[in-house]
Amino acid sequence: MDLIKLFKERYSVRKFTTQKVEDDKINAILEAGKCAPTAVNYQPQRIYVLKSEESLEKLKTVTQYHFNAPLAFLICYDNTVSWKSPFDNKDMGIVDASIVTTHMMLEITNLGLGSTWVGYFDPKLVSKTYNLPDNIVPVAILPTGYPDKEPSPMHNIRHDISETVSFI
Amino acid sequence: MDLIKLFKERYSVRKFTTQKVEDDKINAILEAGKCAPTAVNYQPQRIYVLKSEESLEKLKTVTQYHFNAPLAFLICYDNTVSWKSPFDNKDMGIVDASIVTTHMMLEITNLGLGSTWVGYFDPKLVSKTYNLPDNIVPVAILPTGYPDKEPSPMHNIRHDISETVSFI
Repeated sequence: MDLIKLFKERYSVRKFTTQKVEDDKINAILEAGKCAPTAVNYQPQRIYVLKSEESLEKLKTVTQYHFNAPLAFLICYDNTVSWKSPFDNKDMGIVDASIVTTHMMLEITNLGLGSTWVGYFDPKLVSKTYNLPDNIVPVAILPTGYPDKEPSPMHNIRHDISETVSFI
Repeated sequence: MDLIKLFKERYSVRKFTTQKVEDDKINAILEAGKCAPTAVNYQPQRIYVLKSEESLEKLKTVTQYHFNAPLAFLICYDNTVSWKSPFDNKDMGIVDASIVTTHMMLEITNLGLGSTWVGYFDPKLVSKTYNLPDNIVPVAILPTGYPDKEPSPMHNIRHDISETVSFI
């Protein structure tokens, strides 16, 4: 499987058609998230599928990066379920939610859909807007839909390996 | 591409053969990490390839979950480079390092190798052991190598989608 080709083809889609995402594709994206490993297999991820017109309208009030997408996923974790490192008590739910979101993001690309990983939002405003319980911590939003043009190769320039990697 | 099949085939490999991982495979794993999206494309990931006997011996002093692997990746981020959310000043380097690690973990599986995502370590001890600068924050370790048996389907039971997902 040419996984690196998929990684390179993925790009941040910021313009979508109005075409609805089919339920079987939504289910495949959720299945991809479900397969993700999490610390101690606690599976603290809590995923909200923003599908109704009302939920999608609300999204516009919590981030400017909604891109008028016809669908969005809000990926959170439950901090009463997530694993805390015994060394520094760090809540690893943020790592787990990130692994889950990465799986979902890749399956979105694989299905011919597009998304952008959005982290630019006020978690408190998200919690208030969607009436999330106090123990649910928002981590990422994936506005999702059909790209309004053909997928193009990676736009973003990446550093050379030598700038980020050390062999020791 | 049957990505979900790959996700399901991946499992936490905790026993490795002594076979060295070839350089071209190490490079492919690093390339997979390089392709990962990061906040504002800042690419704060800093990856240490633990390849020398000395570095691998040191690994045994920082985590019990080294599995005597013939290779390991230590994935960190540079907190002078990573994006901080303007809403709560949260350092998103931990999210970026997690996306990078997920890409690498998946390519490891794709290459017929195995790994386990290890978060059970004292970051301060890791920093001291490998003489990391103060601005480098360790997030994950991937002990990596050839599994000592055939890959088997997902061992871990996952919750039903209905337990972690809400349609709103």
